[in-house]
Amino acid sequence: MKDSVIILSGGIDSVTLLYERAAQIALAVSFDYGSKHNAKEIPFAKYHCEQLGIKHLVIPLPFVNDYFQSSLLQRGDDIPEGHYTDDTMKSTVVPFRNGIMLSIAVGIAESCGLTHVCIANHAGDHAIYPDCRAQFIDAMSNAASSGTYINVSVEAPYTHVAKIDIVRIGQQLGIDYAATWSCYKGRDKHCGKCGTCVERIEALTEAGINDTTEYEK
Amino acid sequence: MKDSVIILSGGIDSVTLLYERAAQIALAVSFDYGSKHNAKEIPFAKYHCEQLGIKHLVIPLPFVNDYFQSSLLQRGDDIPEGHYTDDTMKSTVVPFRNGIMLSIAVGIAESCGLTHVCIANHAGDHAIYPDCRAQFIDAMSNAASSGTYINVSVEAPYTHVAKIDIVRIGQQLGIDYAATWSCYKGRDKHCGKCGTCVERIEALTEAGINDTTEYEK
Repeated sequence: MKDSVIILSGGIDSVTLLYERAAQIALAVSFDYGSKHNAKEIPFAKYHCEQLGIKHLVIPLPFVNDYFQSSLLQRGDDIPEGHYTDDTMKSTVVPFRNGIMLSIAVGIAESCGLTHVCIANHAGDHAIYPDCRAQFIDAMSNAASSGTYINVSVEAPYTHVAKIDIVRIGQQLGIDYAATWSCYKGRDKHCGKCGTCVERIEALTEAGINDTTEYEK
Repeated sequence: MKDSVIILSGGIDSVTLLYERAAQIALAVSFDYGSKHNAKEIPFAKYHCEQLGIKHLVIPLPFVNDYFQSSLLQRGDDIPEGHYTDDTMKSTVVPFRNGIMLSIAVGIAESCGLTHVCIANHAGDHAIYPDCRAQFIDAMSNAASSGTYINVSVEAPYTHVAKIDIVRIGQQLGIDYAATWSCYKGRDKHCGKCGTCVERIEALTEAGINDTTEYEK
């Protein structure tokens, strides 16, 4: 039964969840919130929805780049390099981004009579991103359920799943991870050095996937 | 101490809260989500912020009118007439609107180092608007606190306060309610017949306020 909306960035995690739950997903929503890498990741979100025949919306949120503080944003500082869980990565937090994306998706879900909203936050996100932790997800699900007539729920099945295990799920589903985007710098090719690139390389390597992503030299 | 963001529509309730908490409010945010009455109410929000010397932002959310179902929206059906708590008023619900506005305000608050977000939902809203009830507010406050580094909290001091008592607070503060907007139809003058007009007239009359609002004949 198609009863779900998914928040789809075009990265490894949400693309995996899109394929894993394709039978339940009626609508995928991507948000262009003015990050340096939105223009690189959203075309992959669109591509996978086309492959699966799932309706896809792109919602611009220009006020985030206007008023929020984060190195991830176009008007923000340089993206830090290093490991994904390093303290320096805190500058990449976009305050309450998942709260905003989930709330909009919940409103669209209720407008369409869809009872579930899925998001692909994962265990490796917890160190740096407070709006990826189980306590936040539980509270948002309570807010969604109590704040809608049809009691929309938030589902975040990878909250306690490591990146390597997400990649293994995708491997079984035959997902081509070269058709996903991770790099926060959003340049022509993945930089290979920022936290999310390092995490991507580690997971694909550990899973034994032939990584055909092009990285900067 | 100026540590708060307020969600300010330009209606009776949020304008009263603006004056009551003026000493704590660093920033007021209005949302233009494509309702029939946004263009009438937002200038009053701006006016009161100017009176009080409080910074005011207007954030457009055009995707709401594009993708959401509600008679409140420009592309929605006609606004129903009758009492504010009538079942017919359900068509005016904009799904999860308060969740969306609160989430954006929480992100801005954290970006500015402000620890509180205020919203002026009141006791009379509960019958029709699920995202005005105490359970929703508590869940959103938990989400805001757990999803931010500075543990932003949501404050909704009128959740259990009746409209008449809000108006009495404003009366003591000397607020000019003619400089507020309620009518959902958003025409030149207040219609005097839709749910929120009926509620407005009842509260101002019961409080013994000389209501100088111009209503349609």
